[in-house]
Amino acid sequence: MSASTLIAIDWGTTSARAYRLDARGDVRDERSAALGISQVVGGRYHEALATLLGDWRADPAPRLACGMIGSRQGWIEAPYVACPASLDTLVAGLAPVREATLSIVPGLITRDRSGTPDVMRGEETQLVGAVAANETVLAVLPGTHSKWAHVEHGRVIDFTTYMTGELYGVLLAHSILGRMGTRADASMIGSAFTRGVERGLGTESVTHAIFGARTLVLTGALPSNDVDDWLSGVLIGDEIRAALAWSTDRGTDASRVRIIGDDRLAARYETALAQAGVAIERGDRHAAARGLWRIARQAGLLH
Amino acid sequence: MSASTLIAIDWGTTSARAYRLDARGDVRDERSAALGISQVVGGRYHEALATLLGDWRADPAPRLACGMIGSRQGWIEAPYVACPASLDTLVAGLAPVREATLSIVPGLITRDRSGTPDVMRGEETQLVGAVAANETVLAVLPGTHSKWAHVEHGRVIDFTTYMTGELYGVLLAHSILGRMGTRADASMIGSAFTRGVERGLGTESVTHAIFGARTLVLTGALPSNDVDDWLSGVLIGDEIRAALAWSTDRGTDASRVRIIGDDRLAARYETALAQAGVAIERGDRHAAARGLWRIARQAGLLH
Repeated sequence: MSASTLIAIDWGTTSARAYRLDARGDVRDERSAALGISQVVGGRYHEALATLLGDWRADPAPRLACGMIGSRQGWIEAPYVACPASLDTLVAGLAPVREATLSIVPGLITRDRSGTPDVMRGEETQLVGAVAANETVLAVLPGTHSKWAHVEHGRVIDFTTYMTGELYGVLLAHSILGRMGTRADASMIGSAFTRGVERGLGTESVTHAIFGARTLVLTGALPSNDVDDWLSGVLIGDEIRAALAWSTDRGTDASRVRIIGDDRLAARYETALAQAGVAIERGDRHAAARGLWRIARQAGLLH
Repeated sequence: MSASTLIAIDWGTTSARAYRLDARGDVRDERSAALGISQVVGGRYHEALATLLGDWRADPAPRLACGMIGSRQGWIEAPYVACPASLDTLVAGLAPVREATLSIVPGLITRDRSGTPDVMRGEETQLVGAVAANETVLAVLPGTHSKWAHVEHGRVIDFTTYMTGELYGVLLAHSILGRMGTRADASMIGSAFTRGVERGLGTESVTHAIFGARTLVLTGALPSNDVDDWLSGVLIGDEIRAALAWSTDRGTDASRVRIIGDDRLAARYETALAQAGVAIERGDRHAAARGLWRIARQAGLLH
């Protein structure tokens, strides 16, 4: 292959993924390892990086990383820079890991209406990669801690977090609503999911609505092995309800949402947003890699 | 002691409590055992009852029970009777356990605005015991699954459930918000709790608000060993916000709330309701026993 211009690393809590990008910012090659910061013991990040890169170690291209690797529990702590944040704000906050000729992108911090801080780390880079400099976009990044962000002309204006994915996980694994069976094909989006979304979009209290998983099964109105699907729908529906209200309160156009992500979860958000009557766009599959490339270019790191 | 007129049993998931009541319906004696339905293996309820009653087995007084003992997983399944439910409705739904000369009070079922069923089992008896026949009351029964009920002239008109206590438990034990330390005195209600209540009363999304436990600690605005207290406040505050809206929507006076319960959790609700500007009353400490006595009297069980 031709010479790469950047080694980009999306380094999260449970996994690390490395990319080589060409002069146009396109991904030429990628590899991943189960070397997220929760798996690297005793701060042995240097060894973890060597394992992840393998024979790419000889590549002289600059290296830029984003994600939890820059958190207090990561290799070095990169700052949280304040919203609204432009590409220049992110470049100014880059944190160098000197012994590894690697830099880490800062996270973002904002405050909600109550004055409570909100943070992201990794998603800022995906936003830079998935939204062009001339666009205005309301974006959702589904996940353990789902993020919604308003991006305008290359600047992340504001964002908000919902603990949807984590709540789903702990409720299924540890509460009375826990899985009572498994569906034949977990990749299919069933009618129990869309019923749940309907419920979540219309509820004023998610802690009341989720009790429905128990009562619907008890009264024979929901098969017990559809509880996971129904609960997923309620939680995602409730998130969409709250996020659309958040956007509208801020004067942001909420009639169209860009979904950043390409997994099964993103497909669920696509279904649920359509139910809410919102138009949908899908973001770049390599949003993190492309975002790292744009930040590197702005920082003058590319040769 | 004088002859008892009733042996009343409040038989739940984790414990069973028996009472002897006199002719005026006052509790004369009580005993309890860790013989909740989750602890009784192989359906050995007859043995469990004998252990619980001990030397009361010779007492010829009638026996009446309420709670999860009447659920599908209990001794026999007592029905769920529909709201609005009067004392007569409960009496008509009594389920006899013939081999034990014991009857079990039915649960209640209602449907919320979305048509989703809601159920209670045991709380209907506490409501009967804590609200006099000539009163109109908005009541809360704090717990794993908190119940709010509108009771009018001895009839339970409607009710709603919030999974507040269970959510608190699973989030602390199993989520990223998990307890990072312990407070010196867990029985004290600290300032972190009242801060949490303020947040919960004002939020439009509890799945967003709870993420504040992480960001407030991260930014040094909340000591990490106050997370449990703060989270408890957010969840109870959010429940009160939703329940007051539920009451107002239904045209129920929500300016005064009766708290049924006398433990530490009830004290937290007292603090939180005061913050919400709601007047507070405390229910009878022996609400379940007194409720069983009233139902027994109405059923003509008392000699």
